[in-house]
Amino acid sequence: MQVIKTIDEMRQARKASKKSLGFVPTMGYLHEGHLSLVRKAKDDNKLVAVSIFVNPTQFGPKEDFKNYPRDTERDLAMLKPLTDYVFMPSDEEMYPASYDTWVDVKGVTDVLEGSARPGHFRGVSTVVLKLFNIVEPTRAYFGQKDAQQVAVINKMVKDLNMNLKVITCPTLREPDGLAMSSRNTYLTPEQRRASPVLYQALNLAKELASQGEWDAVAIRKEMTKLIQKENIADIEYISIADNETLKEIHRIKYPALVSMAVKFGRTRLIDNMVLDK
Amino acid sequence: MQVIKTIDEMRQARKASKKSLGFVPTMGYLHEGHLSLVRKAKDDNKLVAVSIFVNPTQFGPKEDFKNYPRDTERDLAMLKPLTDYVFMPSDEEMYPASYDTWVDVKGVTDVLEGSARPGHFRGVSTVVLKLFNIVEPTRAYFGQKDAQQVAVINKMVKDLNMNLKVITCPTLREPDGLAMSSRNTYLTPEQRRASPVLYQALNLAKELASQGEWDAVAIRKEMTKLIQKENIADIEYISIADNETLKEIHRIKYPALVSMAVKFGRTRLIDNMVLDK
Repeated sequence: MQVIKTIDEMRQARKASKKSLGFVPTMGYLHEGHLSLVRKAKDDNKLVAVSIFVNPTQFGPKEDFKNYPRDTERDLAMLKPLTDYVFMPSDEEMYPASYDTWVDVKGVTDVLEGSARPGHFRGVSTVVLKLFNIVEPTRAYFGQKDAQQVAVINKMVKDLNMNLKVITCPTLREPDGLAMSSRNTYLTPEQRRASPVLYQALNLAKELASQGEWDAVAIRKEMTKLIQKENIADIEYISIADNETLKEIHRIKYPALVSMAVKFGRTRLIDNMVLDK
Repeated sequence: MQVIKTIDEMRQARKASKKSLGFVPTMGYLHEGHLSLVRKAKDDNKLVAVSIFVNPTQFGPKEDFKNYPRDTERDLAMLKPLTDYVFMPSDEEMYPASYDTWVDVKGVTDVLEGSARPGHFRGVSTVVLKLFNIVEPTRAYFGQKDAQQVAVINKMVKDLNMNLKVITCPTLREPDGLAMSSRNTYLTPEQRRASPVLYQALNLAKELASQGEWDAVAIRKEMTKLIQKENIADIEYISIADNETLKEIHRIKYPALVSMAVKFGRTRLIDNMVLDK
């Protein structure tokens, strides 16, 4: 495994072989969810590259950029058996002082996380486009956990005619249903105990829809009731939307994306489920 | 010479050979200025691709998109001896109905043409990035005539870590000094007769600077006086700026970009000269 810190070296490494390459962009502090992407990349391609870069431009001024968990040594140990290249650029390498070019995917970024976190997806699409240009992957792997991110990246790749395949992999969960996330480390024991209610609410939505409940408002109401049983859970949004445009729907129409953001104290968790036939 | 109308076919043609490829993006209605870029591309590379696409997203709502001159047959005849691939996509091929992703180079686009034509450079950088992704050139060729476009493309390629070389070629001029441009065709005989005054004003700036005039305001004043001798010339701006940031300078510092936009009736001409040691 080669650990690479500069753009030039990453380019040279990529140029040295024309083999298929699977790429997993991450912000580090890896968990089994990330590793499932890396394993899939290894299955599908001759070479695997993983980037570890806590991207400053996708955090709002009041968000957790400075406190985002980091543990490079542990990350590298986890990647070693699976990965050919780890790309770990500095902030200055990615965004030199004069940096000022931005990629905006409109429409699909106006809602959900995009409206709760202004500028977030501009930062995501810009850094992902840069990483794609540097790493030149054959295929890139993203987790369904960040459903809107998947929609944004897919739209960007299609609109900008980027020459690679985007592959979405299922959300990995703890045994009690909590979606794996580097931010779970922020949860107090009490919050951690309450947190599986997100997954329970998603399953409730699935069950109601499969029983023939077509009214999205009614489903959202039942989900809200369930989550509110946990007094410390503070719902930011619950959405039932078209899975491609992410526009809210009133009547369930498959495939639909049920998604939510719920705060426990200062920690904000997101989760989602695609309802399909 | 292969004439290609779809993105998929262009990609396949490019994939068929890994040879070096020089790319000249154009809006058609070709003149010797374009051909000088194509010849340079042919000198430097094994293969040459030229795109002909009048890009709707770089025209303002009151600009000349509909009336922009077009003559594909003549263009193809001119390119035939020099070009391997001509990429001529439709508007729908480049911008399908749901299209909504944009590339914004900030800073360098705030001034000059960018402030006179809001949204122009967003359209330019977006279409050029798309074309680069489709054609995958080794080198891309642009004319110095559009000096700010050159600055914007260079910044975009650098900021977004695009894997190609941008090469700027000198402005070609008519014998009397008028910079070649597809829009020259709009000029009435009287306007055409007066139009070399732009080049004369640029030469005056160069002469004054070489004689030791360091005051940019004084130089602009002399240029203005000269141009105003042509009653039908309507100056939109005259700028003396840093050649990289395009920020106005008060004292001449090499390399400096002297540029201008001057209207003759409805026709807007631009021209520029880089002052260097």
